[in-house]
Amino acid sequence: MSNIFIAELLGTLILILLGNGVVANVLLQKTKGNGAGLIVITAGWAFAVFSGAAVALNLGSAAHLNPAVSIATFIGNGITSTELISYLGGEFLGAMAGAFLVWLMYKDHFDATFEDPGAQLACYSTGPAIKNTWSNLFSEALGTFVLIFVSSSFASTQGETVGSIGLWPITTLIWAIGVSLGGTTGYAINPARDLGPRIMHAILPIKGKGTSDWGYAWIPVIGPIVGAILAILAYQAIH
Amino acid sequence: MSNIFIAELLGTLILILLGNGVVANVLLQKTKGNGAGLIVITAGWAFAVFSGAAVALNLGSAAHLNPAVSIATFIGNGITSTELISYLGGEFLGAMAGAFLVWLMYKDHFDATFEDPGAQLACYSTGPAIKNTWSNLFSEALGTFVLIFVSSSFASTQGETVGSIGLWPITTLIWAIGVSLGGTTGYAINPARDLGPRIMHAILPIKGKGTSDWGYAWIPVIGPIVGAILAILAYQAIH
Amino acid sequence: MSNIFIAELLGTLILILLGNGVVANVLLQKTKGNGAGLIVITAGWAFAVFSGAAVALNLGSAAHLNPAVSIATFIGNGITSTELISYLGGEFLGAMAGAFLVWLMYKDHFDATFEDPGAQLACYSTGPAIKNTWSNLFSEALGTFVLIFVSSSFASTQGETVGSIGLWPITTLIWAIGVSLGGTTGYAINPARDLGPRIMHAILPIKGKGTSDWGYAWIPVIGPIVGAILAILAYQAIH
Amino acid sequence: MSNIFIAELLGTLILILLGNGVVANVLLQKTKGNGAGLIVITAGWAFAVFSGAAVALNLGSAAHLNPAVSIATFIGNGITSTELISYLGGEFLGAMAGAFLVWLMYKDHFDATFEDPGAQLACYSTGPAIKNTWSNLFSEALGTFVLIFVSSSFASTQGETVGSIGLWPITTLIWAIGVSLGGTTGYAINPARDLGPRIMHAILPIKGKGTSDWGYAWIPVIGPIVGAILAILAYQAIH
Repeated sequence: MSNIFIAELLGTLILILLGNGVVANVLLQKTKGNGAGLIVITAGWAFAVFSGAAVALNLGSAAHLNPAVSIATFIGNGITSTELISYLGGEFLGAMAGAFLVWLMYKDHFDATFEDPGAQLACYSTGPAIKNTWSNLFSEALGTFVLIFVSSSFASTQGETVGSIGLWPITTLIWAIGVSLGGTTGYAINPARDLGPRIMHAILPIKGKGTSDWGYAWIPVIGPIVGAILAILAYQAIH
Repeated sequence: MSNIFIAELLGTLILILLGNGVVANVLLQKTKGNGAGLIVITAGWAFAVFSGAAVALNLGSAAHLNPAVSIATFIGNGITSTELISYLGGEFLGAMAGAFLVWLMYKDHFDATFEDPGAQLACYSTGPAIKNTWSNLFSEALGTFVLIFVSSSFASTQGETVGSIGLWPITTLIWAIGVSLGGTTGYAINPARDLGPRIMHAILPIKGKGTSDWGYAWIPVIGPIVGAILAILAYQAIH
Repeated sequence: MSNIFIAELLGTLILILLGNGVVANVLLQKTKGNGAGLIVITAGWAFAVFSGAAVALNLGSAAHLNPAVSIATFIGNGITSTELISYLGGEFLGAMAGAFLVWLMYKDHFDATFEDPGAQLACYSTGPAIKNTWSNLFSEALGTFVLIFVSSSFASTQGETVGSIGLWPITTLIWAIGVSLGGTTGYAINPARDLGPRIMHAILPIKGKGTSDWGYAWIPVIGPIVGAILAILAYQAIH
Repeated sequence: MSNIFIAELLGTLILILLGNGVVANVLLQKTKGNGAGLIVITAGWAFAVFSGAAVALNLGSAAHLNPAVSIATFIGNGITSTELISYLGGEFLGAMAGAFLVWLMYKDHFDATFEDPGAQLACYSTGPAIKNTWSNLFSEALGTFVLIFVSSSFASTQGETVGSIGLWPITTLIWAIGVSLGGTTGYAINPARDLGPRIMHAILPIKGKGTSDWGYAWIPVIGPIVGAILAILAYQAIH
């Protein structure tokens, strides 16, 4: 249990540090990557999952890094309730710690973006391109469904012969979801990825920050959980 | 047979959901990826094939996801006529289902693009940059020839030691065809990928939609089939 | 010998069809990829090498696809003089055939670009950003030196356990050379890649075409050969 | 020892030739890649590490290519003090030699950029987007911490079955750090990568060159060393 907690905490920390880091690089003022566009953002999130998963696997968890995955795995009888608590705790705390590090590192650039609170918030949590509760929920559920259903379909490698290259399929899948299904709500597809940093946005003294948009906060929590559970059930029904 | 049908249906569904999804993200109004360019579109289609193929392989088909591949395989004596019917049925139905999901997910953005019916249609099926029956047919046949001839040349992996990483060569090839041979007709190179979604475009109540361009519809069906058959015959003649 | 000739011919055909194809997609008028930029062009060439090498390996050559590689291998005693002739013949004929197919496929777009003969020529052969004989020669020699020296350093795979994934290192290296060392002369780094298509440019009735720039033609032939020979000698001296 | 010195020298030479080469291609005037953007620069540096590491591994070092890695490995008892000297010497001399080759190759373009000394310097060493000693130090330390901590977590491959594909995880990680943590100081994360070329900038007769910004030079030396040592200690404490 302790291993799982530490593994998920550090893996999710790396995930959010690199994932929200790429958003900060592209959206904040005066950075080297300002305006670098969607290919950079989606590559960054894919590589962030790769990096975070390598850390978590090495420390002994299954590298969920995502409460929707952990809950769906629990429902599919893949982990115990004690393990579930370790997973969830590590994921949310890791996400908050990662978001804190992004703020520390990019602080001068958050300051330089004080006139654009929307861009600042986007470096923490997602928001809809067009606000519409059911559409937004559906987007988050569908993106997470694809994440779980396709990644469950990956062929396992025999032994350890491929090393960390074995993480490249999930990396490709995250990149795929980013470019294809990220257009509407920004593909949170992970409650910890969205809620943890949103809490940090509310807490941190970010210069010029605006609302944390709490009215939207439940959608990237509930949508992914629903999508993940449906994916696990569908996968088990078909196989 | 039933396995093949389900595998191709779900694999092609994922292929079209992600493939047409990336087009929707880049072309429709107010999305996060609006105007993100060719590198994103071609990456998205390559990763879509990767994801769809992982699903189909896992469910027991050979992951054709493409009637041109299935017909050419049948002619090359790789599958029986009964299997061919399962492949084709799964591919066309899966493509239609995938296109339906893209519409559901991006509905608000299709609505916001009501003044550009050409962009809306491009989220379903391909069209020529310059209309010219023989050139367009040639482009689709050549692109599919390269797809079949090169992918037939891939070295098979021994056992299962490389896991889903073994799908990276076909992913790279799809990406190659997209950037290099997609400039004229948009590389349908797959009758189901084009005709299935075109039927959905004709059926769905898309706000402001224009013609489904049925006059062009036969080219991305016939061109790929001709190219695939020639590729199988050429490959077998040389080897 | 015959196997080598066919393998190099078809492999180089695919290399140039996809490689010059991506240039045509990005530079010619009215294509889907017009103006898509350096990331697309360099990705396209890297994937073209991947695809061509898969074809050539499968047909029984060592997938040189490049006379500079073949000559350096011959000097390093890796092939006989009879084999060298098969390699060179296949490479130059394959490059010419590939360039012919690019013209056939993109003909309407070559026509539409009749006012920009420089862009048309760039779809066949390379040219210097700043003309300077010694600098240009040095660029081509250095790029090819890196190609041969680094690819000679790749760890061989044991048996066939990694399949065509084993081509990903050379793909990455080509991409590296493109983005890093392609800025001055456009990284021909291959006499067949440059001379074969240049001959086709001179022969084909391209609407509005200008000079084939024969004054420059020797540089991407001699530079790569010198660079490749120096790389083989340096590699053998150090190891 | 001699092997290590040669391996690190040639590996770091390739690293800097390709890494600073991509910056030259994107930032200098009249190049083919002028203005190609962050995705190209970060891809170029990732592929540069891939290429340099292949060369160094093949020649018998552990492919540090980075004094911060060597010092941290020494502190973690991974190498002897004699080996450390070989590593450091090879790294700094290789970085200087690589920077010299970039100047030779891109000389005409350095000349053409004589009115922008800032762009010229950026082809040698890094500089902060917003100058702030503590923030800049923190950025460099954090980026290097992530480099060491995550790469230490990579699963090792069994035997040699994956060949140079085994370098793809570190390549992905370098790309990740580039897009996500490079926005503030340009991710030197390597004292040799920054100081070696800066010395060359000071020495070489670059037309129109300005200051080598020696006031900043210690930050990309000290930051990475501190970050690497903390990462090794943290990794060993947790595992």
